[in-house]
Parts: sequence; structure tokens; C-alpha cells
Amino acid sequence: MRVNSNYRNIQNSYLFSTIAKKVNEYTSANPDKKIIRLGIGDVTLPLCSAVTDAMHRAVDEMGKKETFRGYGPEQGYPFLKDSIRDYYAKRGICLETDEIFVGDGAKSDVGNILDLFSVDNTVLVPDPVYPVYVDTNTMDGRNIVYMDANASNGFLPLPDPSVHADIIYLCSPNNPTGAVYDGDGLKKWVDYALENDAVILFDAAYEAFISDPGLPRSIYQIEGAKKCAIEFCSFSKTAGFTGTRCGYTVVPHDLVREDMELNRMWLRRQTTKFNGVSYITQVGASAVFSDEGQAQIRSAIDYYRENARIISSAMREMGIWFTGGDNSPYIWLQCPDSMKSWDFFDLLLNKVQVVGTPGAGFGKNGEGFFRLTAFGDHENTKAAVELIKTL
Amino acid sequence: MRVNSNYRNIQNSYLFSTIAKKVNEYTSANPDKKIIRLGIGDVTLPLCSAVTDAMHRAVDEMGKKETFRGYGPEQGYPFLKDSIRDYYAKRGICLETDEIFVGDGAKSDVGNILDLFSVDNTVLVPDPVYPVYVDTNTMDGRNIVYMDANASNGFLPLPDPSVHADIIYLCSPNNPTGAVYDGDGLKKWVDYALENDAVILFDAAYEAFISDPGLPRSIYQIEGAKKCAIEFCSFSKTAGFTGTRCGYTVVPHDLVREDMELNRMWLRRQTTKFNGVSYITQVGASAVFSDEGQAQIRSAIDYYRENARIISSAMREMGIWFTGGDNSPYIWLQCPDSMKSWDFFDLLLNKVQVVGTPGAGFGKNGEGFFRLTAFGDHENTKAAVELIKTL
Repeated sequence: MRVNSNYRNIQNSYLFSTIAKKVNEYTSANPDKKIIRLGIGDVTLPLCSAVTDAMHRAVDEMGKKETFRGYGPEQGYPFLKDSIRDYYAKRGICLETDEIFVGDGAKSDVGNILDLFSVDNTVLVPDPVYPVYVDTNTMDGRNIVYMDANASNGFLPLPDPSVHADIIYLCSPNNPTGAVYDGDGLKKWVDYALENDAVILFDAAYEAFISDPGLPRSIYQIEGAKKCAIEFCSFSKTAGFTGTRCGYTVVPHDLVREDMELNRMWLRRQTTKFNGVSYITQVGASAVFSDEGQAQIRSAIDYYRENARIISSAMREMGIWFTGGDNSPYIWLQCPDSMKSWDFFDLLLNKVQVVGTPGAGFGKNGEGFFRLTAFGDHENTKAAVELIKTL
Repeated sequence: MRVNSNYRNIQNSYLFSTIAKKVNEYTSANPDKKIIRLGIGDVTLPLCSAVTDAMHRAVDEMGKKETFRGYGPEQGYPFLKDSIRDYYAKRGICLETDEIFVGDGAKSDVGNILDLFSVDNTVLVPDPVYPVYVDTNTMDGRNIVYMDANASNGFLPLPDPSVHADIIYLCSPNNPTGAVYDGDGLKKWVDYALENDAVILFDAAYEAFISDPGLPRSIYQIEGAKKCAIEFCSFSKTAGFTGTRCGYTVVPHDLVREDMELNRMWLRRQTTKFNGVSYITQVGASAVFSDEGQAQIRSAIDYYRENARIISSAMREMGIWFTGGDNSPYIWLQCPDSMKSWDFFDLLLNKVQVVGTPGAGFGKNGEGFFRLTAFGDHENTKAAVELIKTL
């Protein structure tokens, strides 16, 4: 018996558990202090009524023999996949329904998609990076190459023609930096991928936060992308599904490598290792696309956007350099006075009880930076910003 | 870019899709004929009211800001894990709560657990076999060795000391054969695994169908099993969750290979590639363990058991050899007149419009056998049995 020895190479401590530990230690020592959390990217507004109404109906269906549903299609019910197809169509992107796969969230699909690729491929990730991209490839033993995202490129690195990669991770709007690629930037990546026979794994989990109509919300708005990109999206941040679990992955038929259609490979992977998302959840997700649902989630996103505006304004006022905030729920700021990320974390926690995320936890280029998120409520966000100003 | 070339080695056609195609062709040609499905192992009774009542409450919680839940623990909420721990305790099995991992169903976990093991391991599976065990290992490129399950060993193969294996699949009550290992049989497997430094992947998805108190319902009833076995269980067949998706996997702390605690490896796998099961689903699953829930699911299982009794009685009456039926929802019968499995499938479909599952679809030793399931309703099951008798 041999275990997967690659697991020896992953770091044992996960960024957010370290934060949780520090916060727990602080609250144990200071039980009277109120903590404001602008750290983990979790939402705070409840599911909208269009979704909960639909889920109540689905629960009732599941409780009656005539309307009970057992195993559904592993790749999702047509009623939901059709809604997603129409959602793309509104942005001028034409997808076949069977290019859309419903899953239990972008995190699962982003990890599991690696099953389709040889461990011999070279992986290109930005630094700073959402740790899951790195850890999932480390578990498989793939060679990882980093590209520098930093203040000089606005945390939006462009391809280096001298570097070859087979698998490229792009996340736009970016987690953790909030930076958003424009069409020209994405076109450079698509061209690079096509030249290198590479596949782009495009994480679009935050697309709904883009308000600037000139910025692409899907990689498929870029010519050639269907031949080189898989797109991951989620109801987590769009409709508050972080605890309800539903997302979708687009694998175009045009995406072929070594004569294998990746769409067929993913279908085979999902029908073999997955049994679909709860019918009740899919009914709820489908309600997101109703007129009522769209209006309600838009209202929630606007609420978070206002938080982002509050934070961004305060940063501008204090003369702090940052990315994100405008078309993204994340504000990625340079720590004042050349402080290190964890020192700034400790300062905020100990002096004003505001919890953010140290940029250093996302890679070496994150050192000296700090992430705040717009997912709190107005009152706490305003309070946090005023407290930070006092420092 | 290199794809995972092991995908070239998996068969393109999945057993149940072939059956669906044949049934669709028949119904298109004979739209007036009523089909009775005793094929796929899907349940037909709805979720019990204890579960739907709990899920309604959870949906309401998710719709209010004060009670909304975002990201939960990837390994499951304590309220559900504690209930599962107590469920095991009632059978005299003492588990730590953190040895239990809640997932979205046994199929996902049985597939994903392979992430923990090197591709160099040799895998031992019975023939006939649930195809997912084979396909998931083929996708990883592991060497697969088969052990013969057949009429002479009652479809319950025992270890062959001359064969070495690192990963062993056992499913009891078995899918597809319905055969159930007794304590002596499982003890032989545990001893073999310990001698070979192997890990048993024990699929207990059908444990709730065991009524004979002398038969083990968990591998952990066998001494030494915590040092060599991972157990998978599910609410699918126990509580009708095939379309609601919830299961659990037990990885004991005592299970250590090459100095690596598999429990910690699985925790790392799940926290990195999975984001937990819907809160609403977990609340529903938790209600299964209430007194009301237990009484209600017991009633549903008894209903299916009565179907199994109806089928078993008819087989005995016709002098057809079979396994299962008593402590299992599956009846695995020898096709009459030495017919081949697919010929018997065509005969039943064309002559009496009963759909079962050809044993040949589960491996070479399945040839000449046929699976019927007890998940239909009484009326259809009785009608099917009477129709089969007319042949």
C-alpha cells in the first residue's frame, strides 16, 4: 500500500484556519470586544424569497409520491441548464445546453476538473493566488509555475511568451485582488493559450459584480476562447448560495486536446464520480433566473457594491493604494507604512477589532497587502472603515 | 498539453444508459404498453414528513438574515455528525465525531477517496461489480485484479492468500448480488487486509436492509477493522435521498499507512476540493435520526422488504436459484434455461414489459444472471412477478 505521497508536499495550515485561530484567541482573552469580520469571502444576506419560495415548493414535491424525484441527471436538470444557457445568451454567448454542467459549487469543480489532465502538465498560476489552485495541483504532483501579479501590473499579469504552460488559472474579478481583466488582456491570454496548446481554467465566480459594461463577464466573450477555456461559475456570491451549494461549469465542444473532447471526458468524470445536485437546490437556483429572482439578487449585489464603495472611498481618502472595489467585492490594499501583512492583521485585530485577510497568505507577492471584503453589512462596514481611519 | 490518457481505457457505454436506450426504443415502437421498472436501484417512496418538515424549517432559516448560514464546515455540521456517531454507538461501535465526514453521497466519496492512494497500488474488486469501482480506478490507471464471485461461493468471495492487493472493495449487502457477508467472512477480509497492509473500502450503502441481527451492518463490528477499513454509507436507500444527496464516510484515526493518517489526508482533500453539503440537506438528514424519522424510514424500508419477499417467494416457487432478497433490496437470479443476461432482458422487456438489469453488465461472472430490485411499489412488483411466472 502506497499513499499519494504528494500530500506530504501540501502545507498543513490553511490561511483561514490560522485567521480563525488568532481571532478565537483574541476573543477568549477579550470577551467584551466586538469583532467586525471583513475577512473570509462569505456572504451575509439571506437567500432571496424567490429562491426560498421555490425551495419550499420543491420540498413539498419531494414529500409526495407522485412528484418525488430520485436520481436526476448527474450534469443537472434541463430546467436549470436551459436557464443558464439563456443567461449566457443575454450576453451574446451561444452555448449548447450540454456544454453546461451543474455542480455543487465552483470549488468542487475547479478541483475535480484536474482529473482530466495528465500530471505531466505544467500549471501557471498568478501570485498572489486563491490557495485551492495550488493545493489541488500539488496533490496531483504537477509542476507549478508562478507569474508575478504586483502593483506595477495592477495585479493583472499578462502572458510571458518565453514561459510555456499547459494549464492556466485566471480568476476575474480576481480573488483575492479584486482586479478585473479587460477584453484586451483576456484576448492576450486566449491567444497565448491557443499558441501553447494550453487550457485556461477561468474562474468567473464574481462575474455578477462587474458593473462596467466594457469589461467581459465571461471568457467566451473573447474570440477563440471556446477552443481553449473552461469556465467556472457559482451561485455562492451571486445569490448567497455559500451554504446552499450550487455552481456550474462550461466545457465547450470545441475544446479538444490530443483528439479527446474535454466535454465528453468531464461528462464521463461526473457521471462516474458524482450524482448530481439536490433537486431542491436546483429548483432554488433556477428561481434565481426568474424576473423576481433577478431583481432580488441584483438588490443584494448592489448592497454589497455599496459596501465596496464605502471601503474604496475611505482608502482613497487615506491615500492608500488598492485594486478592486469597483467591479468586485474585494478590496486589495497596500498596508500603510510598509507594514507586513500579518503585522497589519494583528494591528487591526488588536487595536480596532477588524478582521481582514493578510495578503501574504495568498503568495509571496501578497506580502505587504491586505484584503477586505464587501460582504458585511453597511453598519459594520462603515464602522470598520471609521475605526481603520483612527489608526 | 496532455490529457489523462487513462480515459481512453474506460468503456464509453454505461450499463444503465444502454438499458434506457433499449426501453426508449421499445416504448417508441409500442406506445400503448405499460413498462414496469425493476431495474435501476432508485427508490420510489417520497421523503418522510420528519425530513420534509425539518427541511422547510431550514429553508425558512436560510431566508432570514439572523438565521442564515453561509459556508459550513466542509466535513459536515456537528449536529449531523453527532447523530451519526450515536447511530453507530447503538450498534456498539465507538467513533470519534471527527472520524465521520458528511458528503453529498457515497458515489462521490467512493470515487474521490482514491485521491489519497498512489496510482501504483493494486486494486481487488469482485466480479460481478458495481461499475463505479472499476471505472474510477481505470481513470487513475491503477492495476485491477478481479476475484470470482459466483454461484459456488454464493457470490461472497473470500481472500485468496496467493493474491496480493493494496485496495479492496467490499460491498455488503452487495450491489448487484444482494449477498451479505457474515461476521466470519468479514473477519477473513480484515485479517487479509492487515496481513497485506491493504485498505478495505467498505460500501455499506444498504446496511439498513439487514434484518438478521447476526449479520454485521458495519465493518467496524469486526475486530481490527479500524486499522484497515474506510466505510461509506448513504441516506439514499435508507431514507430516499437519491435525489436529495447526502451520505457519510468514516475514516478512523487508527488507519495509518506509510506514517500518514488517512483521516487527516481525507480532511485535507475535502477542505480543499469540497465545500460541504447544503445546510438544508444536512438538517433533513439529521431528522432521519429523530424518533419520528427512524419510525418513518423503518416503515419505508419494511415496504421495500415486502417487495423483496414477494420477488424471492416467486423465485423459490419457480425453482430459480438466487441470492439476496432477505437482507437486501436486490434479488440476483440465475436466468432460466441457461439464457444469457441480455437475452433474458430482451425477453422480459418484449414479452411482459418488465425491465430488470442484465447481470452481464456487472462483469463476466454476471453473465447468465439478472438483477431485480425491491424499490418499486407493491402493485407493480406483484404484477411483474405474475407476468414473469407466465413465461
